Amino acid sequence: MSDPTEYIDMPRDEIDTPVLLVDLAALEYNIAKLAEHFRQAGKNLRPHTKSHKTPAIAQLQLAAGAQGITCAKVGEAEAMADAGIQDILIANEVIGRRKIERLMALAARCDIMVAVDHPQNLADLDEAAKTYKVRPRVLVEVNIGHNRCGVPPAAVVELARAADKAENLRFCGIMGYEGHIVDLEDKTAREAGAHECIQRLVDARADIEGAGLECSICSASGTGDYYISTTFDGITEVQAGSYALMDAAYGKLDLGFKNALSVLTTVTSRPAPDQVITDAGLKSLTPEHGLPPVKDRPDLECHALSEEHGRLRSIGGPCTDLQPCDLLEFIPGHGCTTINLHDNLYAIRDGRLEAIWPIAGRGKVR
Amino acid sequence: MSDPTEYIDMPRDEIDTPVLLVDLAALEYNIAKLAEHFRQAGKNLRPHTKSHKTPAIAQLQLAAGAQGITCAKVGEAEAMADAGIQDILIANEVIGRRKIERLMALAARCDIMVAVDHPQNLADLDEAAKTYKVRPRVLVEVNIGHNRCGVPPAAVVELARAADKAENLRFCGIMGYEGHIVDLEDKTAREAGAHECIQRLVDARADIEGAGLECSICSASGTGDYYISTTFDGITEVQAGSYALMDAAYGKLDLGFKNALSVLTTVTSRPAPDQVITDAGLKSLTPEHGLPPVKDRPDLECHALSEEHGRLRSIGGPCTDLQPCDLLEFIPGHGCTTINLHDNLYAIRDGRLEAIWPIAGRGKVR
Repeated sequence: MSDPTEYIDMPRDEIDTPVLLVDLAALEYNIAKLAEHFRQAGKNLRPHTKSHKTPAIAQLQLAAGAQGITCAKVGEAEAMADAGIQDILIANEVIGRRKIERLMALAARCDIMVAVDHPQNLADLDEAAKTYKVRPRVLVEVNIGHNRCGVPPAAVVELARAADKAENLRFCGIMGYEGHIVDLEDKTAREAGAHECIQRLVDARADIEGAGLECSICSASGTGDYYISTTFDGITEVQAGSYALMDAAYGKLDLGFKNALSVLTTVTSRPAPDQVITDAGLKSLTPEHGLPPVKDRPDLECHALSEEHGRLRSIGGPCTDLQPCDLLEFIPGHGCTTINLHDNLYAIRDGRLEAIWPIAGRGKVR
Repeated sequence: MSDPTEYIDMPRDEIDTPVLLVDLAALEYNIAKLAEHFRQAGKNLRPHTKSHKTPAIAQLQLAAGAQGITCAKVGEAEAMADAGIQDILIANEVIGRRKIERLMALAARCDIMVAVDHPQNLADLDEAAKTYKVRPRVLVEVNIGHNRCGVPPAAVVELARAADKAENLRFCGIMGYEGHIVDLEDKTAREAGAHECIQRLVDARADIEGAGLECSICSASGTGDYYISTTFDGITEVQAGSYALMDAAYGKLDLGFKNALSVLTTVTSRPAPDQVITDAGLKSLTPEHGLPPVKDRPDLECHALSEEHGRLRSIGGPCTDLQPCDLLEFIPGHGCTTINLHDNLYAIRDGRLEAIWPIAGRGKVR
């Protein structure tokens, strides 16, 4: 396919495979549902775009009321800024001379906010901001239990004070991410974990304000526990992102969002009456959150993915209806990393292709 | 990084991360070593390019004596044909109207050979070839034990005869792939499995020739067992591919090839004296063949990858030398799927960047 636009308005069944589909009705439902929750809760939603990496979807989220977006890295933020998006949090540390230079170039053309967890990084950012004549916002990242990045809660006031003193940076508050509990299937454990982690973040905010510093932003959480965070007075905004497209792993959490993401795949071989081979494998779908269910086909089970082959078996007898050329849809186990394999999202409404959206944040050097 | 060419001749240590590096000395060693084996064995090497997807590497393999290349899909073959490569085997079934049209367009500009395992697909190819006024070569794929695609050995003569009769196709022979044993760490089991599978393929060739059909190509095998295949008189060519760049999984097989592939990554956080966070995670490296070792740092162990973070711990005490901004290299567990995450390969010689090679076969719709 040299020119994807030739596909527009084509029936779904004529699209060359394997490709990533988004069901527009489900996407719009999900965006509206979460936006309504935040309106009612009186909190800000800053959707994480690391999952979809697609400016067209970020713009739908902003149009529905989100006050800005979250990115995982400079490359994603560059793609979103290129699409005209202004208010962007990079919810990770930005490290190294080249990356910091790119960050400052971004700060010259949009309102960039970045996480810090180390005094040397703070000093590097401050110096680069001076050189570039910009004044980006910074949030101190707090380790609220995930034990990945972030300062311990006991050290947050010290780094917040240093950030507040940095002449070329605007200290705005704190963020945390309870990534170790956000996708737990056990609802009781997930919610208890969220309460514990968010309390740590809210306590850190109180410590900062107790030290006489302003802390106007307190940001955390994801799709699995956003509704816990919005019950905390001290939380000002939430970074949920996977809710827009969902995936098979989040689908198990019974959160009320619809599955909007699938990989369209063609049957390529029928080696035995109960065996089906399709053209989507590890280069179209990621397996780390489980092998993909087949949409609307509970009689089929994916038992293995090789690089360019999905291997299915039928449960309870041969699947006599399927022949080479027939189409199936896989629901990705992990949407974020599956989308990262593709260059475009094929947006479907009522069985026809309405748009092809570039996954513009993909493939960028972090 | 908007223009990658600005990097040329830069020291490795100044490249923005995470990026995929290829060590040119190791790559050249591997290509020369396998080429020499095939010269001595008097067999043809048709390297599989599904792993590197990089025309620049395919051209090095051809220059060293390979008589053609193997691809997994039409999109890869298109990228290789765009680079001027002529003799291309697509070692999979090509299914569906659009894909077959693309195959025939390819056949009009290079010498394309494709696998078949189903009479309907054979008929579809024959009809499309007539329309496009081309005459591509076909190989019947035989299931030699992998149980994925391919006809059972007992059915090979029937499909070969049909292929031979197809007016617009040139039946040239057979292929098989013993994918279930090619990467077994247990050398005895791997070699015994290879003998068994290759014997099945060679027997199928004898059956076809016994039926009065010419079978000039008999193609199989990979990096883990090429040296078994080349001992069989009936084998004419071998599809090994991973040998060029290698990865951590193939590295365990003690095959004599050097590791040429790594992901350059920056330390972004030091949450504890024995903990290191870097900027390469699941969006830069795939985990299905194991978490990545750290090159030249046996004191460090990667214990988890999240989307944009590698999480390392030091073994036997704190790693006091590492600070944010320092560089490390991961050796990917699975090269094929890791390369599929990246757009470019950064080619390094003597610590400097010699070239940036587009991974042109990546991201194409199959």
